[in-house]
Amino acid sequence: MDYFAESLEKHYEWQGKIEVCSRTSADSKQALSLAYTPGVAQPCLEIQKNPDECYKLTRRKNLVAVVTDGSAVLGLGDIGPLAAMPVMEGKCVLFKEFAGVDAFPICVDSRDVDEIVNTVRLISGSFGGINLEDISAPRCFEIERRLKEVCDVPIFHDDQHGTAIVTVAALFNACRLTGREISDQRFVLSGAGAAGTAVAKLLLSLSAKDIIMCDSGGAICRSRADLNAEKTEIARLTNPRDVSGSLADAIKNADVFIGVSAAGTLTGEMVRSMNADPVIFAMANPVPEIMPDIALKAGAGVVGTGRSDFPNQINNVLAFPGVFKGALSVLARDITDGMKLAAARAIAECVSHEKLSKDYILPQPFEPGIADKVAAAVAEAAKNEGVAIARE
Amino acid sequence: MDYFAESLEKHYEWQGKIEVCSRTSADSKQALSLAYTPGVAQPCLEIQKNPDECYKLTRRKNLVAVVTDGSAVLGLGDIGPLAAMPVMEGKCVLFKEFAGVDAFPICVDSRDVDEIVNTVRLISGSFGGINLEDISAPRCFEIERRLKEVCDVPIFHDDQHGTAIVTVAALFNACRLTGREISDQRFVLSGAGAAGTAVAKLLLSLSAKDIIMCDSGGAICRSRADLNAEKTEIARLTNPRDVSGSLADAIKNADVFIGVSAAGTLTGEMVRSMNADPVIFAMANPVPEIMPDIALKAGAGVVGTGRSDFPNQINNVLAFPGVFKGALSVLARDITDGMKLAAARAIAECVSHEKLSKDYILPQPFEPGIADKVAAAVAEAAKNEGVAIARE
Repeated sequence: MDYFAESLEKHYEWQGKIEVCSRTSADSKQALSLAYTPGVAQPCLEIQKNPDECYKLTRRKNLVAVVTDGSAVLGLGDIGPLAAMPVMEGKCVLFKEFAGVDAFPICVDSRDVDEIVNTVRLISGSFGGINLEDISAPRCFEIERRLKEVCDVPIFHDDQHGTAIVTVAALFNACRLTGREISDQRFVLSGAGAAGTAVAKLLLSLSAKDIIMCDSGGAICRSRADLNAEKTEIARLTNPRDVSGSLADAIKNADVFIGVSAAGTLTGEMVRSMNADPVIFAMANPVPEIMPDIALKAGAGVVGTGRSDFPNQINNVLAFPGVFKGALSVLARDITDGMKLAAARAIAECVSHEKLSKDYILPQPFEPGIADKVAAAVAEAAKNEGVAIARE
Repeated sequence: MDYFAESLEKHYEWQGKIEVCSRTSADSKQALSLAYTPGVAQPCLEIQKNPDECYKLTRRKNLVAVVTDGSAVLGLGDIGPLAAMPVMEGKCVLFKEFAGVDAFPICVDSRDVDEIVNTVRLISGSFGGINLEDISAPRCFEIERRLKEVCDVPIFHDDQHGTAIVTVAALFNACRLTGREISDQRFVLSGAGAAGTAVAKLLLSLSAKDIIMCDSGGAICRSRADLNAEKTEIARLTNPRDVSGSLADAIKNADVFIGVSAAGTLTGEMVRSMNADPVIFAMANPVPEIMPDIALKAGAGVVGTGRSDFPNQINNVLAFPGVFKGALSVLARDITDGMKLAAARAIAECVSHEKLSKDYILPQPFEPGIADKVAAAVAEAAKNEGVAIARE
């Protein structure tokens, strides 16, 4: 089926994939007097007295902004904020349909980190959380870090953390299936942008000891002279054996390959050079780093991709709706590593011991209840980590 | 009835008066492939190729931002952006219920004109129009003027222009009823903030010659030394006889009083000092400058107020839903004086010759079809004035 032509046609029909609906009527003088003037003065004054009441008296409690500058749109790259809008609207549909969370797209027409941070900061009081989307690395790291400092709502760059959460969920179940310990594995990550960096950091928080990250220049090691600030930090945090060279060099005797790079990066020969029954997560979109049949033929024990037409789809939609639902439910002021790991565990636990197999390490997005389970785990973790604000 | 207590209770029940709804489903792989990846790439690429396609492929065409800094919230004053949110949500409900226009509240946490202008500019690509709301004078004038320069979507400060449109609509019918010509009338305006200034300017565009504006310091005249830039401009544009003194001095022999000031500003004695059968629009909220019975006893020919419990309610809701609906329908890049006057005429024409009386110079907000009539007139005017962009 030609999704591209049909999607275009559908988009012309839809005239927008979201709309703003009223939750109250305005069809009589009395209705207006309650929803608007004069009655509305009272909720206003309550919020003025106690600002946290805005989470009870307005939609803020259930409302996420999906913010982009259009600089790294999925599969399309730097297409700008206007052209990114159909993706952002689609994301908002997913928030609503998968978790009942209201989400609204905001495209910021700037590439300047200061401007983007300031713009989001100034409007953040209209929302209960900010989902950063499709902002290119390394700007995305600074934007997220600075927004976390200046906003009192949770900030979550989905391309980083959504991917990391679902990758780790898949890894949990791959390890469960094959009796491995994460801390004993040798990891090679291909792609050191937003997603790869976040995966590496979440793995480090799980005591993974041996991670080598590769970018287009090969293994990121301390002797490389071409690294920006973020990659210098990666070189410091990972690659304890200071391996240099190409991906083919780095991957020898590795146990797990995680790809967030480009089609064709991984060959059957490289897979054969890994330790026995390696785990291969080839998540390049739309064409994975290696096709599953080639990886399996080369000895892979478990293979996952980003695609829905192969088994083990590693898809952010398993994470972000529930992560925000959980964070919003306890008015979390941050989304911490502990909350991300709780989300990953909850996703992994959606696969029962009986169902777990090398072709089924992750639930399908449409299985019911995933977002609620993730939300409950995230809310609990937020409370445990002290970031849930007791506004109730 | 105690609207205040009941409104508060209702607001706790509603948990927000608006929500973001999906216009498409995401309940199957195929639905996702069309609304999101991979299909969504196609509408993105179309917009990248031709940016104006965003008006067909996303919700932008029907979407207005209701933007405030919370500095001049109706009847409450400077309560800040968070506390203003219930009013902004209420406004969004009115947009939707009266005209089917999607509106989304954005509270900007700044009082700095540069910051507000820059923030709205950077996010304006997410919307088809910007409704500025409850921003204090004189900042509102500069914010609107500068946004009109830097944004390619219509900018409309409703407290100014919505009020001006409906006041002029009421005036059209008061003149129709009493056989007067606007250009022959002597006007006195009480209140020289956002609304008063906009009313005066719209009257000037109708060739009103004799307007005296009064603020708390009395008549605004060229000899006053205490005027800010906006009021200096008012002194230049109005008051051709350079009348000085108090409102009581200015109002002698006037034909029309327009009040957007405060309760009790106008006395029966002042009304008696006006020309015969004067028109009195006393729009202070919630208590008018003079109560209708007192004004009528003092000889007023026609009386209007801002209140729904008296005849002739001069209410912005007659204007802004249709104004934006019309502007959006032709992708107007501005809302001009000609469009405002077209809106005022359309509102006035909603009152048939048979129905027109001193107690019925304006339609009731709930009469069907008002927004559509206003929208059609505004769209037509936009085309005539050359601000409708031929994006079809």
